[in-house]
Amino acid sequence: MTFTNPRSSEYPVEPLFLDRWSPRAFDGSAVPPSDLLTILDAARWAPSAFNSQPWRFVYAVKGTPDFDKLLGLLNDFNKSWASDAGALVFLLSKTHLLPPGAQDEVPSYSHSLDAGAAWGSAALQASLLGYAAHGMTGIHLDKVHEVLGVPDGYRAELAFAIGKRGDKAKLPEGLQARETPSPRKPLAEVAFEGTFKA
Amino acid sequence: MTFTNPRSSEYPVEPLFLDRWSPRAFDGSAVPPSDLLTILDAARWAPSAFNSQPWRFVYAVKGTPDFDKLLGLLNDFNKSWASDAGALVFLLSKTHLLPPGAQDEVPSYSHSLDAGAAWGSAALQASLLGYAAHGMTGIHLDKVHEVLGVPDGYRAELAFAIGKRGDKAKLPEGLQARETPSPRKPLAEVAFEGTFKA
Repeated sequence: MTFTNPRSSEYPVEPLFLDRWSPRAFDGSAVPPSDLLTILDAARWAPSAFNSQPWRFVYAVKGTPDFDKLLGLLNDFNKSWASDAGALVFLLSKTHLLPPGAQDEVPSYSHSLDAGAAWGSAALQASLLGYAAHGMTGIHLDKVHEVLGVPDGYRAELAFAIGKRGDKAKLPEGLQARETPSPRKPLAEVAFEGTFKA
Repeated sequence: MTFTNPRSSEYPVEPLFLDRWSPRAFDGSAVPPSDLLTILDAARWAPSAFNSQPWRFVYAVKGTPDFDKLLGLLNDFNKSWASDAGALVFLLSKTHLLPPGAQDEVPSYSHSLDAGAAWGSAALQASLLGYAAHGMTGIHLDKVHEVLGVPDGYRAELAFAIGKRGDKAKLPEGLQARETPSPRKPLAEVAFEGTFKA
C-alpha cells in the first residue's frame, strides 16, 4: 500500500518518525514470527530506570488459537478491525524494581514510561520493516491478567496490532476517513524554554 | 567519541536501536537550539491514545540561566555529571484527556506510557544526530511544578540530559566502568507466545 504522507515536521526530523502511523486496515496476512520477534527485539533496547527493563510482551500470530485468545481481550470496536492484523501483542510492565545494591524491590516511578519507550521502538521497527502497528487501550483490562496468566505486580499497559496495510475500503465508512497519518499540535504548544506555558 | 558497541541483537534489528545508549560523560558544549528542537519535534510524532499528545517538554540550553534552574531540580548524583550536558529537558504528561465527542476530560490510562513513546523517539533522534540522551528520575519531584511553573494535571515523568559525548576520564572512577552501552535480558525472558511466563 503506497500513499502520500500529509505530515511535515517543523525541523529536519528523520523520516522514520513521520513515516510511522497507526492504520486500522490490515490485509489479513500473518506476520512471520521472525519479523515479529525482530520488532520485539528492537523494543528491549529502549532505556529504562536502572536498566530495569520492566516491559513484558505476550504475543500471538494470526491463524493460531492464541491469536483468538488475545483478540478476545479487545473491546468490540478494536476487535472489529484488529481481527485482520497479522499479530497481536499485549504489553505489560513490572511495577517494582530492585535498585542497585538494594535488598528489596521498591515501586518504580517510571515503569509505564519505560514501557512506553519500548512500545515506541516496537512501532518504529515495525514501520521500518514495512509493517504498521496500532496501539490500543480499549481492552478488557479486568480480564488480561487471568486470560494471559499474568502474575500480580505487572500493569497491563496496552495492546497493539501489527500487520501489512490493507485496503481501507473494507473498513466502516467513518473509519475510512480516518485512515491517514494523523497531524500533531505545533511544537510551540508542547515544548517550552525554561518555563511551562499552559 | 568513537567506541566499539558491545551489544548484539538476537534478530536483525535496525542499528539505530542498538546505537542509542545513555552515557554520563558529556563534553560541555551547548546543543544548538535547532538541534534540540529537532529532537523534540521528532518526539511529538509518537503515538498516543486518541492522538491526545499528552507530552510537554520544558528545556534549557547549557550556558543560560534556565539551564541552572533545571539543573537544580536534579538530585546531587545526577547534577554531578549532567552539569556537562549541552541541554536539559523535563518531560511532563497531561493526566486527563478529552475522548472524541465527549464534553469532559477523563483520566487517561496511558499518559505515562504515551510520554514514554515520545521520550524514546527523542532519545533515538538525538542519537541519529550524533548526540546522546540520558534519562533520569532522580529529580526533586516535589519541586518540579513550582520551579517550572507546571499547572496541576501534569505528572513529571523524567528529565533527560542531551549532549555530545565527552571523555569518561573526568567521571568518578565507579562511573567510568559503567560508561558503556548496557546489556539486555534475553528476548525469551521478556517476550512470550500466548501466555505470560514468570
